[in-house]
Amino acid sequence: MRVGVIGATGAVGKELVEVLGKRRFPVTELKLFASARSAGTRQNTPFGEVTIEEYNDAAAGRLDLALLAVSGDFAKAHARALAAKGVAVVDNSSALRLEDDVPLVVPEVNAGAIGRHRLVANPNCTTAILVVALAPLHAAFGLKRVIVSTYQAASGAGAEGMAELEAETRRVLLEGGPARHAVFAHPLPFNVIPHIDTFQPNGYTREEMKVVWETRKIMGLPGLPVSCTAVRIPTFRVHAEAVTIETERPVTAEAARAVLAQAAGVKLVDDTATLLYPMPLTATGQDDVEAGRIRANDVFGEFGLDLFLCGDQLLKGAALNAVQIAERMGLSSR
Amino acid sequence: MRVGVIGATGAVGKELVEVLGKRRFPVTELKLFASARSAGTRQNTPFGEVTIEEYNDAAAGRLDLALLAVSGDFAKAHARALAAKGVAVVDNSSALRLEDDVPLVVPEVNAGAIGRHRLVANPNCTTAILVVALAPLHAAFGLKRVIVSTYQAASGAGAEGMAELEAETRRVLLEGGPARHAVFAHPLPFNVIPHIDTFQPNGYTREEMKVVWETRKIMGLPGLPVSCTAVRIPTFRVHAEAVTIETERPVTAEAARAVLAQAAGVKLVDDTATLLYPMPLTATGQDDVEAGRIRANDVFGEFGLDLFLCGDQLLKGAALNAVQIAERMGLSSR
Repeated sequence: MRVGVIGATGAVGKELVEVLGKRRFPVTELKLFASARSAGTRQNTPFGEVTIEEYNDAAAGRLDLALLAVSGDFAKAHARALAAKGVAVVDNSSALRLEDDVPLVVPEVNAGAIGRHRLVANPNCTTAILVVALAPLHAAFGLKRVIVSTYQAASGAGAEGMAELEAETRRVLLEGGPARHAVFAHPLPFNVIPHIDTFQPNGYTREEMKVVWETRKIMGLPGLPVSCTAVRIPTFRVHAEAVTIETERPVTAEAARAVLAQAAGVKLVDDTATLLYPMPLTATGQDDVEAGRIRANDVFGEFGLDLFLCGDQLLKGAALNAVQIAERMGLSSR
Repeated sequence: MRVGVIGATGAVGKELVEVLGKRRFPVTELKLFASARSAGTRQNTPFGEVTIEEYNDAAAGRLDLALLAVSGDFAKAHARALAAKGVAVVDNSSALRLEDDVPLVVPEVNAGAIGRHRLVANPNCTTAILVVALAPLHAAFGLKRVIVSTYQAASGAGAEGMAELEAETRRVLLEGGPARHAVFAHPLPFNVIPHIDTFQPNGYTREEMKVVWETRKIMGLPGLPVSCTAVRIPTFRVHAEAVTIETERPVTAEAARAVLAQAAGVKLVDDTATLLYPMPLTATGQDDVEAGRIRANDVFGEFGLDLFLCGDQLLKGAALNAVQIAERMGLSSR
């Protein structure tokens, strides 16, 4: 199968290539597209050395599968046209996620929404990590309200975000000087920034509203009350989430643990006696979302539950989920 | 006034001495007590050079004011006896906070509870930072439910915690090796640890339950439903808190902002247009708790509010609040 990664030099693009390799995706030819600046450079991949090309519609139009890890503007300009040419397209941007004719998919939750669609949107990283845990809890207990506070890694701002965190942490520790910032709105080392993406008229950030809007769409619960506080913290590539839910039917920690122990895409990491709980340290590089710290929250009587999640932002939050979508698109070489 | 700091070499103890100086506390004689290991060393203070002494009951019993920044065991063994000798005692440990005969005080909230008590408990750091914002919101709108997720700094584990975060971050960046840990349950650099203090039978940590128990006591709301997820993150000395409340009476972001703009001990930092919101970077070394990201949370209809707080863990979370309590104790030299 002819597979192209568009945005191949970014953090998500690189991870897409790795995930295709790890999952033994049936790639017969891999094409890597990036900006003119990177064109001509060679990249080692699990499918051999590939020379990066500047994106061009003609070459992309001959692909069987295009994985887009570029801007929303690019997706708006090219995604539908590529799909119309018969290319299966998975778009990682937020541009098309809420369009009625574009399914927004986390395969463990709503693989059925893919159907015969040739263009599928990959959700926001925080949302993807959240819904793999929420969906089985909804099936078992019914969701009435969801409140989420996030601990989001630098990788959400791409490779540049990770590089800035590392370089500026060095500056603080070695030179003792104040950290500089270009990627983030403020210095990130030893700081937290309660601001991801742009502010909306209602006071929430777009990142926070993406969690609201996308959770509702993926779970098929358009009226689900969800509130999110999205916070950038100095970690590299795992998003953590403190989640409080109110359920429709009574819930206990034990029952929730039993549900999550069986849930696809979730790894139950919840043994406080041996200090096991989700952490970026252990979730880094892992496919499954770690779920733990599961406890009955008496704020909602017998209908409340608190839990803590950690998911690799570049894997389930981006590249892994995109490839999992592609695996469900019923592709065959043209 | 003869003032003693017990536990003078710790992070909170050092800060207590600084705060006494900054607030021009009427100190005529300052005594610094620590373990035998530190006894005999000299420390520069705003009140001149002081030689650290090993704690002894006789010397402490002659004080007008004793500020305890040591363990709960020490407080249990000595605090009541000192108070019985006529020493005004402010205890920073958790040992006596829930005792019926010991007021637990955040002066902006319940200074009246001090009365003629000679022994007053200083609350948990996360709680103190939380209630200065919750109390005025309760007065204006009535609190029905409180849900808090914390982003807690290394200083909550004392000077050793801060030193471990710095040393181990250096190790990761310079040697590329894995971080070691002795103070924290797991390595803290570039990680988050959803575990502070010991686990309780209900699955919550003691730190999380302290927020529940102490918030109720300080606010005089014994039945207030509160849930907390307490998370250690790689910051040095400011705790951040994402707070969701349900109110008894309708609340808007604008009305809540007006309330917090007037609240003692709170600094409203909430102008998203100019990227102003609470952050450890700006709250470090500040007396006031920063409050911002205030927005109506439709998870609770017209009764929901989200906000974000940052407070210096060593100041409002510990030393500042202790000295503020002492200022209200109606002390005079004996």
